[in-house]
Amino acid sequence: MNKILTLSAAEQAEYAKQHMLAAAEDIEGALLRLMPQADGMEEQVMAAMRYALMAGGKRIRPFLVLCSASLFGVDRDFALRVAAAVECAHTYSLVHDDLPCMDDADLRRGKPSLHKKFDEATAVLAGDALLTLCFEILASPETHADPKVRCELMASLSRALGAQGMVGGQMIDLLAEERSLNEGEIIRLQRLKTGALIAFSAEAGAIMGKAADVSRQALHGYAHDLGLAFQIVDDLLDVEGDSAALGKTAGRDAVAGKATLVSLLGVERARLQTDMLIEQAEKHLDIFDDQADILRAVLQFVITRAH
Amino acid sequence: MNKILTLSAAEQAEYAKQHMLAAAEDIEGALLRLMPQADGMEEQVMAAMRYALMAGGKRIRPFLVLCSASLFGVDRDFALRVAAAVECAHTYSLVHDDLPCMDDADLRRGKPSLHKKFDEATAVLAGDALLTLCFEILASPETHADPKVRCELMASLSRALGAQGMVGGQMIDLLAEERSLNEGEIIRLQRLKTGALIAFSAEAGAIMGKAADVSRQALHGYAHDLGLAFQIVDDLLDVEGDSAALGKTAGRDAVAGKATLVSLLGVERARLQTDMLIEQAEKHLDIFDDQADILRAVLQFVITRAH
Repeated sequence: MNKILTLSAAEQAEYAKQHMLAAAEDIEGALLRLMPQADGMEEQVMAAMRYALMAGGKRIRPFLVLCSASLFGVDRDFALRVAAAVECAHTYSLVHDDLPCMDDADLRRGKPSLHKKFDEATAVLAGDALLTLCFEILASPETHADPKVRCELMASLSRALGAQGMVGGQMIDLLAEERSLNEGEIIRLQRLKTGALIAFSAEAGAIMGKAADVSRQALHGYAHDLGLAFQIVDDLLDVEGDSAALGKTAGRDAVAGKATLVSLLGVERARLQTDMLIEQAEKHLDIFDDQADILRAVLQFVITRAH
Repeated sequence: MNKILTLSAAEQAEYAKQHMLAAAEDIEGALLRLMPQADGMEEQVMAAMRYALMAGGKRIRPFLVLCSASLFGVDRDFALRVAAAVECAHTYSLVHDDLPCMDDADLRRGKPSLHKKFDEATAVLAGDALLTLCFEILASPETHADPKVRCELMASLSRALGAQGMVGGQMIDLLAEERSLNEGEIIRLQRLKTGALIAFSAEAGAIMGKAADVSRQALHGYAHDLGLAFQIVDDLLDVEGDSAALGKTAGRDAVAGKATLVSLLGVERARLQTDMLIEQAEKHLDIFDDQADILRAVLQFVITRAH
């Protein structure tokens, strides 16, 4: 039995939370160092990038990068740069998703969304620049000594972010306002929209550490189950109307008439589904033994939000 | 004296035009092969990407990639992929620039702009996916056998596209609606907004061919002069109200109250400036001798549009 499993679920969740908080400081430090600054008029878009990046958030994706990198003994400075790149990519997606023509969200993490704080044009540009910056970070020799590894990181990340990944998922999500999806379609939507980037985050350490395929696949499986569980928990919080825990306006899906796994399965079955996914995710970590204890604790952190 | 210079300016322009037309076919073939397709609902964003990419255009940036690659004997299949990536990046910028919150353009190359043909959300997403695809193409081993070269392509391109390049230039351009820029500021704006990607296009062949720095710098200088000349010609056509030659609504800058080099210098001095830039650009090509004849002819093609 793994050491972490001798702790209660609440203790594991707390353990994960403390590690995440400590890592978030390092990640934010790395982000600030990597942000461009200028004296010219283009500084406005850079200020907008910083505003979006520094609005807080759990930093769960970059945390997964750090955890998986430490599994394979990857240099922490390298891992922090990849973690920062992933957070840039995630933040770009939030900025564009919040736009009036998309989800039209006025709040993000309890603060005005970027187009409310600045304006729509600046929000479009800041998102574009964050997406671009994420590749600029990864392409640099400071991110990994081996250019082949850097190329593999960029190849995997671009697949996760593009029309066959996150953007494709967001397209489906927008179209779902006109036509309700069934369970299988919603799972596929989530796999593309949020699962692909979460999977990349968990796999990134294996790519950096040139790990065996079996390790990479295990992390991929773990991340997919984690990602879907995470989404169902978000939907549960949305239904239960807890705006404070969400940091954004609750009840949005119901207002938009969007089907979610929770609206299709009901709250009770959705909770059971989450438990099942967490159990499945845990199994994927067996091959890493005690070394994956933080990744195990993250699962409890996710599920505890919904109970 | 270079062979090409025995031809008249009009003959040189025609020579460039014929080469560009032939190359455009190859470039469009490469783009179609590289575009993702799907059976699912995400196909809508892919259809939008194809619509934007296949709307025509002079394909001058990917043409520069092919010309510079041939200077250094780079495999044509490699060069075509980099050319396609550059056209994806350029097309993404047009799609986002046309959005209602940016330039609010209904027409692009004589056809409805993407958000008019589809909708705003699809246009934002298609732009995002095109930007992402450009890195997906470059990261692949099919683009160059040496991963170091692929990383260098992505590092240079991301700098050209980001907040310190194209996006920064677009930010300045938007702010210029509130405050008129002086000559130096406009030149800087153009250097960022259009110059950086044109410079990357001309340098890409040198990167792929692992050419000496002096070659790369010469192409960089050539491209910067060409880019600025190209922009002044566009402004001249805008002033002279030739919507047909522009393929978009003419007179937009004057309506928006934006200063351009033409409005600051007057038509006659702007034309002289263009001639001077073309001459300067030509000088950068001296080190390549006859081999750069097509790049020389491109200069005449650009300037002929304005006379």
